[in-house]
Amino acid sequence: MPPVLSRRDLNFQLFEVLDTAALTARARFSSHTREDYEAVLTLALDVAERHFAPYAREADEHEPTLREGRVVLPLSAQAAMQAFREAGFFSAHHDEELGGLALPWVVMQAAMAHFQAANIGYSGYPFLTIGNANLQRQFASPEQQRRYMMPLLEGRWFGTMALSEPQAGSGLADISTTATPRPDGTYAIRGTKMWISGGEHELTENIVHLVLARMAGGEAGVRGISLFLVPRFRLRQDGSPGETNHVVLAGLNHKLGYRGTVNTLLNFGEGGETVGELVGAPGQGLAQMFHMMNEARIGVGLGAVMLGSAGYQHSLAYARERRQGRRPGARDPLSPPVPIIEHADVRRLLLRQKATVEGGLALGLYACALVDDLHTGPQEARADTGLLLDLLTPIVKSWPSRHVQAALSDAIQVMGGAGYTRDFPVEMYYRDNRLNPIHEGTEGIQAADLLGRKLTQAGGRGLSVLLTRLEADLAASEPLTGLDEIRSGVRGAAQAGPAALGALLARAADLGPERVLAGAHSALELLGGVVLGWMWLRQAAAAARALPTARGEDTAFYQGKLQAARFFALHELPRIRVHIELLAAADTTALDMSPEWF
Amino acid sequence: MPPVLSRRDLNFQLFEVLDTAALTARARFSSHTREDYEAVLTLALDVAERHFAPYAREADEHEPTLREGRVVLPLSAQAAMQAFREAGFFSAHHDEELGGLALPWVVMQAAMAHFQAANIGYSGYPFLTIGNANLQRQFASPEQQRRYMMPLLEGRWFGTMALSEPQAGSGLADISTTATPRPDGTYAIRGTKMWISGGEHELTENIVHLVLARMAGGEAGVRGISLFLVPRFRLRQDGSPGETNHVVLAGLNHKLGYRGTVNTLLNFGEGGETVGELVGAPGQGLAQMFHMMNEARIGVGLGAVMLGSAGYQHSLAYARERRQGRRPGARDPLSPPVPIIEHADVRRLLLRQKATVEGGLALGLYACALVDDLHTGPQEARADTGLLLDLLTPIVKSWPSRHVQAALSDAIQVMGGAGYTRDFPVEMYYRDNRLNPIHEGTEGIQAADLLGRKLTQAGGRGLSVLLTRLEADLAASEPLTGLDEIRSGVRGAAQAGPAALGALLARAADLGPERVLAGAHSALELLGGVVLGWMWLRQAAAAARALPTARGEDTAFYQGKLQAARFFALHELPRIRVHIELLAAADTTALDMSPEWF
Repeated sequence: MPPVLSRRDLNFQLFEVLDTAALTARARFSSHTREDYEAVLTLALDVAERHFAPYAREADEHEPTLREGRVVLPLSAQAAMQAFREAGFFSAHHDEELGGLALPWVVMQAAMAHFQAANIGYSGYPFLTIGNANLQRQFASPEQQRRYMMPLLEGRWFGTMALSEPQAGSGLADISTTATPRPDGTYAIRGTKMWISGGEHELTENIVHLVLARMAGGEAGVRGISLFLVPRFRLRQDGSPGETNHVVLAGLNHKLGYRGTVNTLLNFGEGGETVGELVGAPGQGLAQMFHMMNEARIGVGLGAVMLGSAGYQHSLAYARERRQGRRPGARDPLSPPVPIIEHADVRRLLLRQKATVEGGLALGLYACALVDDLHTGPQEARADTGLLLDLLTPIVKSWPSRHVQAALSDAIQVMGGAGYTRDFPVEMYYRDNRLNPIHEGTEGIQAADLLGRKLTQAGGRGLSVLLTRLEADLAASEPLTGLDEIRSGVRGAAQAGPAALGALLARAADLGPERVLAGAHSALELLGGVVLGWMWLRQAAAAARALPTARGEDTAFYQGKLQAARFFALHELPRIRVHIELLAAADTTALDMSPEWF
Repeated sequence: MPPVLSRRDLNFQLFEVLDTAALTARARFSSHTREDYEAVLTLALDVAERHFAPYAREADEHEPTLREGRVVLPLSAQAAMQAFREAGFFSAHHDEELGGLALPWVVMQAAMAHFQAANIGYSGYPFLTIGNANLQRQFASPEQQRRYMMPLLEGRWFGTMALSEPQAGSGLADISTTATPRPDGTYAIRGTKMWISGGEHELTENIVHLVLARMAGGEAGVRGISLFLVPRFRLRQDGSPGETNHVVLAGLNHKLGYRGTVNTLLNFGEGGETVGELVGAPGQGLAQMFHMMNEARIGVGLGAVMLGSAGYQHSLAYARERRQGRRPGARDPLSPPVPIIEHADVRRLLLRQKATVEGGLALGLYACALVDDLHTGPQEARADTGLLLDLLTPIVKSWPSRHVQAALSDAIQVMGGAGYTRDFPVEMYYRDNRLNPIHEGTEGIQAADLLGRKLTQAGGRGLSVLLTRLEADLAASEPLTGLDEIRSGVRGAAQAGPAALGALLARAADLGPERVLAGAHSALELLGGVVLGWMWLRQAAAAARALPTARGEDTAFYQGKLQAARFFALHELPRIRVHIELLAAADTTALDMSPEWF
């Protein structure tokens, strides 16, 4: 079985495009070395290859089922979780006094990427658990952290985020789960939550749900929503799981893919009282949850990239082996068929995958590096860093989710009929990744967030920061050769794109919010293209710098980077032009389609 | 359950865009009326709704399995085939003396479309059987037709096409199955065939394989390939199935979708002699098979359209019912959520589906009408009709296959998490349709066929015919209002597109075949866009003509057509511009990517 990610590319991204080694100069990371980071990645690769990858198909074929009221998962899930726990990844980015290694977020996420590539379904449990703990670390009381967060850091319990309800998915303002104060300061939680990943299983001795609920008798809308810690089993005095907390599994969702992660419908307060603890202040629920959600959104983007990576590596290995046809013009029927990687159209299908996957990885890791900068970077730059991260988050989430789906389709196409069968995993990746444009905020939600909020907050400062950084990278690339196409493509897109967005937003008062937001999809695709072009410029520049002194396989690697950047500039980046036009014209063709005309 | 196709749209396409009723003026169809055609469609709808649609999910969930060496299908497959047979569809387009109704091909295919929309898996058996019989009708001897074709027309036996082999899929020139002459004039067939749909089952008392094989000791390459009739059971003197013909099932393929059609690996000549009869002259195998293949390719395109139609109708019904969120600017949290069809981005997702599905249907039916013209149209136009049909075939096959996959992704997206579950059929359509860019010639094969053969044959006459017809439709549309966007879009594309193709082909001698064919994908996408634009122009013109006198629901229907044409012109058609540029520049970025650079 081919590798599911390229370690060479990951090292390039971390240490040649980003300067991850330089993080060790920061106080928090001063005890680290680059070698430590590489050792962490090697450990992740080892655990992922031994305990996650071999069971991806099993997890797909044996989706969670109910037996006597309990969720049954393959035994390999338990073993994978144990290996992950023993490797210390549940707490690796936390302070040393919490049992962690104080790993930078970008290294932590690069490590996690191995598990996503190996088995996206099983990786869901640690991802949610780590996100849940991170939210608690920021908003929960020290006492709550001791009781509910520490078991997550130790991997003994798992966590969820319980937001959606049957009648409220994208529209969280309409949730109706209620929290009623109890005499002891806790709350009785009552309601039904839908689409809850990891909502019920026997992998751990307890599950900590982070539940959005509405204070009984409180305000309507988002200001009435608070956040609660709700354990599956109530905690005894000594903190160990005790009696049931009446969170009742009401059903399992049967999905197209991502089957290794159990997805549940949960009733809170069925057959008895479900007790929860308020996190932070009342009415802050959505704001707090967005902390976890934003982190999850970057994780979704990286997960998409990793599925794309796995598909790319499989189809690449196949294309090198499989022989079929001859090169055009070769007419001798007795000559042997050539490996299909010799065919121009197969190379195109592979190169588009490479451009998508490696561009997406550059973007995902860039966003993670911004998270580090936000916490440990120069104090004076943090406000700008935060605005840039806010602006990029919907793109980091959405661009790979959408474009990796096309890349995985290309992976199937390279393999032809074989790719369409379950003898190879690419059809599984294709099913798995189709969830990514939906969960943690649909593509439409991301687009509206970008155009309706992120592009205008702080007077549009986020976009200014982005363009300043992009211009700096353009300027720094001037002396380098082999970058003409990507430089010219990015320069053009970085002028025309923001101009079109600016033209639309300048008319916002005239148009009104509905007609402005009709351009949300175009804004997302447009800015996504600009940002990916920028990421390819950065990769091409790093490759061009390294190429003159490179040897052997490294030379081919850097040539490939330059060619992929060219491909992105010539084949992919021009696709944003239609969106530039639509935005500049404040197009509302879809909005103007009356429902009865369909 | 919502309908899987719009009968209103089908009638519009057949009787308002195409003038199908005028076919009754031709001698072959002179006993028909338009009402006859509508009655056939109503019968197809009825049989499809009662015997095919209810079992689509069952066919998906219970894919064919082996039990004691026999292929087991759900019982509903048998019932569906019986209903199809009893309705007379196996022979409906054949002469009356063969038991048929002499239906025009366009009406026959419009009828068949109902079965594809209802249950693509089960529809595979009649499709292959009808195609097999059509090939026999053209190339087999009268005696062969009597023995092997008539049982297919009666639906008593089914047919296959057995082309691919494990080492030869797209590269049919490399097949190694051999045919060795036997003393009685028949041939002993020996070899292994892969990806054979309908290759083994118990639905009928016999199966007639059309097998490509190489005359033992004959020429290498395609000129050594001949076509053979190979029954599963040898025919007794009276024509009834007798002893085994030693065609042995060696395995079943387990597919992502399309599971209602069994897909097999077959060994010919295992455990005894497999006897076949030569069809026509030796060495003509590939040419003869392309007769069936071209018909199958149009069928694949229509099948893709029908899967897209089913997904569109489901997501449309969901969008009208499901309430979520409020219109931008509406801030009252106590107001009820709106049906999601009110959201601009949901309308965009629906409108793109409509543009894709109805545009694809217009194209597929246009091609079928050309098939009728080829056989019953004015004699003097037939050469041009044939060239146009040849040119359009790779587009009819590929454009819907690719773009419907995006439309089905939109259908899932409209439905969010629900669309990702198996509670709704859209995820199944999405899996089913992913086969369409692969089978009956991959997209890469179609693209090479278009650029390397169809655009140059007869001195490029096919494209001239296409552009002449397109120009005539443009000119005829001049007096109509509401067509500005589509007219201007099509006019621009019809100038720039062929110019770019011409520029590339003019340099063919300099560039050599490999560098020319590196543009094949762009040529296919480019010409696909032009043709679909043309199909939307035709629909918009028909709508604009009908609108002034329309009443009630018809008014909304025609308004929807005009808006969908606008959407295609503004949102979709501009996507071909990148391909215009790539072709004009004779881009070879992908070809220039050395295999070792990946």
